[in-house]
Amino acid sequence: MKNYKLTISYDGGRYQGWQRLKGVDNTIQGRLEATLSRILGEEVEVIGSGRTDAGTHALGQVANFHTASPLTAEEILAQLRRYLPEDIGIESCEEVDGRFHSRYLAKEKTYIYRVWNSDRPCVFQRRYVYQLEAELDENAMKAACEVFLGRQDFAAFCANKRMKKSTVRTIYQCGFRREGEELIFTFRGDGFLYNQVRIMVGTILEAGMGRLTTKEIQEILATGRREQAGYTVPAKGLCLMEVQY
Amino acid sequence: MKNYKLTISYDGGRYQGWQRLKGVDNTIQGRLEATLSRILGEEVEVIGSGRTDAGTHALGQVANFHTASPLTAEEILAQLRRYLPEDIGIESCEEVDGRFHSRYLAKEKTYIYRVWNSDRPCVFQRRYVYQLEAELDENAMKAACEVFLGRQDFAAFCANKRMKKSTVRTIYQCGFRREGEELIFTFRGDGFLYNQVRIMVGTILEAGMGRLTTKEIQEILATGRREQAGYTVPAKGLCLMEVQY
Repeated sequence: MKNYKLTISYDGGRYQGWQRLKGVDNTIQGRLEATLSRILGEEVEVIGSGRTDAGTHALGQVANFHTASPLTAEEILAQLRRYLPEDIGIESCEEVDGRFHSRYLAKEKTYIYRVWNSDRPCVFQRRYVYQLEAELDENAMKAACEVFLGRQDFAAFCANKRMKKSTVRTIYQCGFRREGEELIFTFRGDGFLYNQVRIMVGTILEAGMGRLTTKEIQEILATGRREQAGYTVPAKGLCLMEVQY
Repeated sequence: MKNYKLTISYDGGRYQGWQRLKGVDNTIQGRLEATLSRILGEEVEVIGSGRTDAGTHALGQVANFHTASPLTAEEILAQLRRYLPEDIGIESCEEVDGRFHSRYLAKEKTYIYRVWNSDRPCVFQRRYVYQLEAELDENAMKAACEVFLGRQDFAAFCANKRMKKSTVRTIYQCGFRREGEELIFTFRGDGFLYNQVRIMVGTILEAGMGRLTTKEIQEILATGRREQAGYTVPAKGLCLMEVQY
């Protein structure tokens, strides 16, 4: 059996997220598995670095799969590009060590979140940005970003209420830059909980709108109560940029 | 009556082009007129700088309309942004001299055409680029671009076979630049015939693929026979960038 690593981009707009679901046709994992199984002539299980939510995009999702097929990495790449829908793109396909596991061995993930901070329309990027007209205090937002840095319990920033596993994560980078009317948030961490990035962005934006202080955000982290944190911003602004191993 | 000038961007993907058509709901002009008529409480005719084909985009289409409404330009702008679909954006709305006419007074138009010259997928820009994997001789393409410059009869580059008016146009700029895997063509002229830009791009690309020589393109211009010119590249790569007055 050979082990192949895929780097994948996708426009999540019409998908129900990464993870294959019973009876649901439009998941990224499901599409990949169906296409690979057809190409390779055997049932293939695709292991992703992690789930992405319905509507969330990726430029650098990573997955791997094992196969007994004699096809080369180049041949598999060409076939995938030929048969996948045009909103799923394979950036690369390479044979890797048999022990490589895209989820267990993932060390860091980087997400961006794009906010279009204007009343002007954003016609060509509208599927990939969250439009918010509000006036934002960027200094307050910068202070809020710093609260999230480091190893902390992010229970208040997880949408899964029945989460039984640890909600402790380490955030290495949390910040944003402005490019004209666009705010681009960057988050890098050892992993993220369900909806964590989207709730953090909502919380930082609420700080920017004067609804939450830095001190309140610190308390929310300490108490771990989801209902006190900010709102969940829409999935379409979120994009998984890179998975590091 | 006041006269207002609009600068408009649109994603042409789901529209049947600019021009209002009887019994067809999804044209840009039709949508604008219906929305403005509702906002202003009177029937409004929107005059565009020119038609754009079905599927073609715009970042700087210009139009004007006359109205007796007491609403200010700012109020009209805000209402339009509120009621138009998100794939039509109003960049600006300003009151202009009563004699301003967006079509008659247009002096120059600038179009770009985007080619994604790679076998790699272009997931996020796929609606705005024409993907072409072919290897291209860029020097041959540059030479082909120069053939189109100046005042010439572009009858061979017009899809309208029953064109009765003059097919003479002046091209001030015709060229392309490469940005990684993307080729961005720019065309600036005093006006363009039906499908002219798309046929010119197809012809330049055929030169790049070794199917047409510079000399043959010169002959095609001279004879005016459409069937000898290149193919018509897809509308989705085309975008009207600017109209100058």
